[in-house]
Amino acid sequence: MTLAITPERLASLFRPRSVALVGASNKSSFSRSAYNNLVEFGFADRTFLVNRRGAETHGRPTVTSCTRIGEPVDVAFMMVPQAGTLDALTDAAEAGIRNAVILSSGYGEAGEAGRAAQAELVAHAESLDVVLLGPNHLGFANFVDQVPVTPINGLPHRAGSVALLSQSGASSQAMLSFAGICGADLSSMVTLGNEAMITAGHVLDYLVDDEHTRAIAIFLETIRDPEVFRSAARRAAAAGKPVVVLKAGSSELAARTAAAHTGALVGDDRTIDAVFRDLGVIRVDSIEDMLITAGTAAQLGRLARPGIGVVSISGGACDILADRAEDLGAELPAFAESTEQALAEIMPPYGTIHNPLDVTGAAIIDPTIFTRAIEAVSADPGVGVVAVVNALPWQSDGRPYTGQVFADAIGDGIGRAQSPVVYVNQVLEPITAYTREVMAHARVPHAVPGLRQAVVALRNLAWWSETTRDAATPHEPRALPVPDSSARRGTWSESAARGLLADAGIPVVPAELVTSAQQAVRAAAGFGGPVALKIVSPGILHKSDIGGVRLGLAGDEAVAAAYEEVAAAGAKVPGATIEGVLVSPMRAGGTELLAGVVRDPQWGPVLAVALGGIFVEVLGDSALSPLPVTPARARQLLEGLRGAALLRGARGGEPADLDALADVIARVGDLALALGDDLESLEINPLRVAGNTVEALDAVVTWRNT
Amino acid sequence: MTLAITPERLASLFRPRSVALVGASNKSSFSRSAYNNLVEFGFADRTFLVNRRGAETHGRPTVTSCTRIGEPVDVAFMMVPQAGTLDALTDAAEAGIRNAVILSSGYGEAGEAGRAAQAELVAHAESLDVVLLGPNHLGFANFVDQVPVTPINGLPHRAGSVALLSQSGASSQAMLSFAGICGADLSSMVTLGNEAMITAGHVLDYLVDDEHTRAIAIFLETIRDPEVFRSAARRAAAAGKPVVVLKAGSSELAARTAAAHTGALVGDDRTIDAVFRDLGVIRVDSIEDMLITAGTAAQLGRLARPGIGVVSISGGACDILADRAEDLGAELPAFAESTEQALAEIMPPYGTIHNPLDVTGAAIIDPTIFTRAIEAVSADPGVGVVAVVNALPWQSDGRPYTGQVFADAIGDGIGRAQSPVVYVNQVLEPITAYTREVMAHARVPHAVPGLRQAVVALRNLAWWSETTRDAATPHEPRALPVPDSSARRGTWSESAARGLLADAGIPVVPAELVTSAQQAVRAAAGFGGPVALKIVSPGILHKSDIGGVRLGLAGDEAVAAAYEEVAAAGAKVPGATIEGVLVSPMRAGGTELLAGVVRDPQWGPVLAVALGGIFVEVLGDSALSPLPVTPARARQLLEGLRGAALLRGARGGEPADLDALADVIARVGDLALALGDDLESLEINPLRVAGNTVEALDAVVTWRNT
Repeated sequence: MTLAITPERLASLFRPRSVALVGASNKSSFSRSAYNNLVEFGFADRTFLVNRRGAETHGRPTVTSCTRIGEPVDVAFMMVPQAGTLDALTDAAEAGIRNAVILSSGYGEAGEAGRAAQAELVAHAESLDVVLLGPNHLGFANFVDQVPVTPINGLPHRAGSVALLSQSGASSQAMLSFAGICGADLSSMVTLGNEAMITAGHVLDYLVDDEHTRAIAIFLETIRDPEVFRSAARRAAAAGKPVVVLKAGSSELAARTAAAHTGALVGDDRTIDAVFRDLGVIRVDSIEDMLITAGTAAQLGRLARPGIGVVSISGGACDILADRAEDLGAELPAFAESTEQALAEIMPPYGTIHNPLDVTGAAIIDPTIFTRAIEAVSADPGVGVVAVVNALPWQSDGRPYTGQVFADAIGDGIGRAQSPVVYVNQVLEPITAYTREVMAHARVPHAVPGLRQAVVALRNLAWWSETTRDAATPHEPRALPVPDSSARRGTWSESAARGLLADAGIPVVPAELVTSAQQAVRAAAGFGGPVALKIVSPGILHKSDIGGVRLGLAGDEAVAAAYEEVAAAGAKVPGATIEGVLVSPMRAGGTELLAGVVRDPQWGPVLAVALGGIFVEVLGDSALSPLPVTPARARQLLEGLRGAALLRGARGGEPADLDALADVIARVGDLALALGDDLESLEINPLRVAGNTVEALDAVVTWRNT
Repeated sequence: MTLAITPERLASLFRPRSVALVGASNKSSFSRSAYNNLVEFGFADRTFLVNRRGAETHGRPTVTSCTRIGEPVDVAFMMVPQAGTLDALTDAAEAGIRNAVILSSGYGEAGEAGRAAQAELVAHAESLDVVLLGPNHLGFANFVDQVPVTPINGLPHRAGSVALLSQSGASSQAMLSFAGICGADLSSMVTLGNEAMITAGHVLDYLVDDEHTRAIAIFLETIRDPEVFRSAARRAAAAGKPVVVLKAGSSELAARTAAAHTGALVGDDRTIDAVFRDLGVIRVDSIEDMLITAGTAAQLGRLARPGIGVVSISGGACDILADRAEDLGAELPAFAESTEQALAEIMPPYGTIHNPLDVTGAAIIDPTIFTRAIEAVSADPGVGVVAVVNALPWQSDGRPYTGQVFADAIGDGIGRAQSPVVYVNQVLEPITAYTREVMAHARVPHAVPGLRQAVVALRNLAWWSETTRDAATPHEPRALPVPDSSARRGTWSESAARGLLADAGIPVVPAELVTSAQQAVRAAAGFGGPVALKIVSPGILHKSDIGGVRLGLAGDEAVAAAYEEVAAAGAKVPGATIEGVLVSPMRAGGTELLAGVVRDPQWGPVLAVALGGIFVEVLGDSALSPLPVTPARARQLLEGLRGAALLRGARGGEPADLDALADVIARVGDLALALGDDLESLEINPLRVAGNTVEALDAVVTWRNT
């Protein structure tokens, strides 16, 4: 694409001074709804209706061409059928309109012909210097400036600080509705459709600089421009704006489905997970969690620490919260002694003082127990956010709300708190105008509906807070020596791979390349103890399969005989250049891992770490991360393996020096980055660790150039 | 307890002809709320107010004693403080009242003194032949007969077919509210409190026979009477009434918390999981899922098959559903060819025909696509329920609902469907009076709010439908030969344990018990190949630790020497009676498991199965089930192990004969049952399987009598 989609350009799209409704028609429900929205939001006087026949439409006069508007217009909102779109674009461009919102379908999502039509559309728009949103979507709405360029019904008028982006038009109305229900008021809503030009990443990038947006929720089926998305997500993290993504396609079934109706690959889901983690992008698994997390994040901002302090009047709610915190990985730290002492002054004698805190029925008699407990818990040195669990009504029964006194007491606690506080409703009830009245009276700024939802939202926010705390200062990989680029071709022999690793400071088991039985015997004697012999040839990847490996050889005779066998096996492989036979000492004990880097078609080099044996073969237990990987991150990857206990010395083994191991693994990643685009894959298998000894026992390097 | 809590007795409590409000007082908000509820539900003329001083209360005359009511009363609804409760009970009993609902706290949940007070309360009630609900709770409401015996505000007037039981009073109002929101209309709501007499199991047992209740939702912190609960749950399963339980205490933190505020053990959570699974009790992890599952189950009843067919107008919703179905274990079967053919007639050419089915925007033009697609999918031979995903409004914007035509088309589809159909709202919006209007117009009987929630509810219902399909005909364990009960004492030696297993038809590796080196050599020669020698003594459980085991012995000399070493090691153990040394052949290859039965203090004998080595030691990978266990269930346990691939022949091993293995494991359970209460534990470790050879290589049996 040649046309630059800059934030300035997107500002003229998303904050237009005026809009031309092109293809306005009384017969079209889309046209009616879109026009109604513009009227309802007070934008009628900045809206121009364009109708090919010039017929009065929606009770207003129309023009037959954009060029007849006679005033500058920022956005052409196209409701014309696919067949008329190219001409309509030409007309708009002639009128000086530089942005178009294209609703019609039948493009990239509609098979081969559709993809061709979309390519033609894009080429035409580029030739006219017009930027496109869509096609096959439902427009956008800017709630801050009150500009609805969408036919979606039931738009909220209240503006907030969450931006909602969706590749699904059909689900966007439901998302809008739920955003209102859960208190995630929106700064803007953008449906993305086929993303012929403007992708999610572009809009995200624009929103990083939008002062009204504090968190961004995105529903994605595919990430069409990984580099744009990655760079925008990095900027968002550095700017302290959480990005919360519901990415479909984690199942094989959905991946196939999404590919069918978006016409794009959804990407390998484990890689997506790893990339999101690397970028500090919060991943959720439901529309509800997406919007509740985004709303909570926009309200609370970065937490100073991950611990959640819970204050509730329901013991049952405390138990549910504790259970879900454990399941879902949220932290409910034990209270500090100072907090316990403070609470002992506040709580009734029969109460139990710990986190989660059940204030007991005594708070019904004396609601200030709530107030004071919140204050005390908010001051706990381990608590980054206080979750106060209580009821919150969504509809009036016609009488004054009997629970107002408790809400007020909680609001008082929020006013005095030293950490952010969220009011958690026990169940997922809507936050209605009536709820907001109760909250306003109590001076409660934000509420989260539902215990499970609150645990998910606060865990997500805590994770984001920690992960992106230093996002503004990215990690630079180490510069490592690399071979001349002319040598980076084909597949390297184990011997050559060993040299590459050793030069990069990655410890490699000692070995000697020999070309005779006599040399082999001498090398073995030099090492002492049993040795392994392996054929060395760039043409032989699976050495064991052809009989090119002999292990545990002790004594001159055994070594000499093995040399002859291995060499003979190598000689039988047609066309393989034999470099010799590698003699190396056998290693016993310790734990074997795999560490490697492969190239993802969307996201570039990805590091994979796994424990060998049944862990990787039976359990598929591995951890991924895009590069660069710091030693600290490499350690997290190791600790996240299901078999991590083995590294910590389970089953009586010697505990591995995790820092030493993590440093080697990070170095593997740095080496792959230093090798750049020439590298196809690099795999160390096994990588052995025993105490603080870390050694590559075998490695394969393949290059993209043959 | 001597007083029998029969369903008849509970009927007089939960369906009372009249209620005495004992301790009625204008000053008590509980009294006011409780009385208001009775008035609002039209029960005022069957309510009698009892006030010690006879003061007019709630605008009505009162009597000073229940004996002055002068009419038969079924329930004394006690609002008196703890100190006056015993006297009030006596008074009520004198008036012939046989049931009491005790709200006050300060009993079992309040430390040592509280537990003593509760014991006194129970003893007193028993002496009076009065049955107690509570104490420390919020009463109950019977919505079918419109009898509210509770101070909870905001009770729904609409009656439904879900019964809600809760040990948490403080959370019950939130649960009630959410039940209304999600369309799980209630037949009754019972708060259980301390369950001094009536436990959840008793109420469940009563509800099995309640014709108005089709599903039961229960929030539990503890199961106080496991046998009553188990028997009631069995009856519910046989009667086809799903029981949905949110059981707190899965985390260590919650277990401790719950123990603190209920004064009862919460039980080992993995055992609870296994027991629920065995009983067909659906376990959920949030209030929302509890009520949505129960509401859906009450509406749909048992599904003929587990497959879910999805019809939606949103491709995004299809993807989210497919992802969550995979994560959460719901089945979205591929459509049969006949279904695909039928859909090809209905769908637009650019649509993709598979499950989940995106009907595409074509359904906006022609809503009958919805109708016809539902009909076609409902006839699919793999589909047990159809989930139709669409919007469903919760509040009117003052204009006629623009989506009514689609709801109507879906309702038409439901009318023509051959399987049950649920209408799934894309997000968790409340089902309000307005929503019900839209549904009524469309003749849609039931809706589920939210995609994730729908997947959870339908998966739960599908699981329940399969698990309890044959619940009315329980499995009888095999009768197996057992040793004389006088011999069932202490810990048995390996040799004795081998005999027990062999007599029960459990294959055991051949072995010979010898008492001299010479005999050992002869025995080894008889087996051929290498052998193992193990000391045999009931006093030596950990044979390896004392040097009492030697493995892989080949040759007469090695065997003889090993005999002397093993015997000498045994002789050094003080007080151990040495029966001899066991000689058995070494086994190579195959997979080693553990199979054993232990006694849970709450639930009795529980079978545990695990793979040996890192699976159990590093991953804690094991499966539990209460007894009896059928061979089919044993096979499920094996297949549920994380390392199950190993049994199927991963890593080049021989696939295990899972049926043979499952039969042996089921037999272990049957043997434990045959041994009855004398058995403390029985463990086979290892149990080796290689192809269709299954053999116990070692076993330990301990008895409860010393």
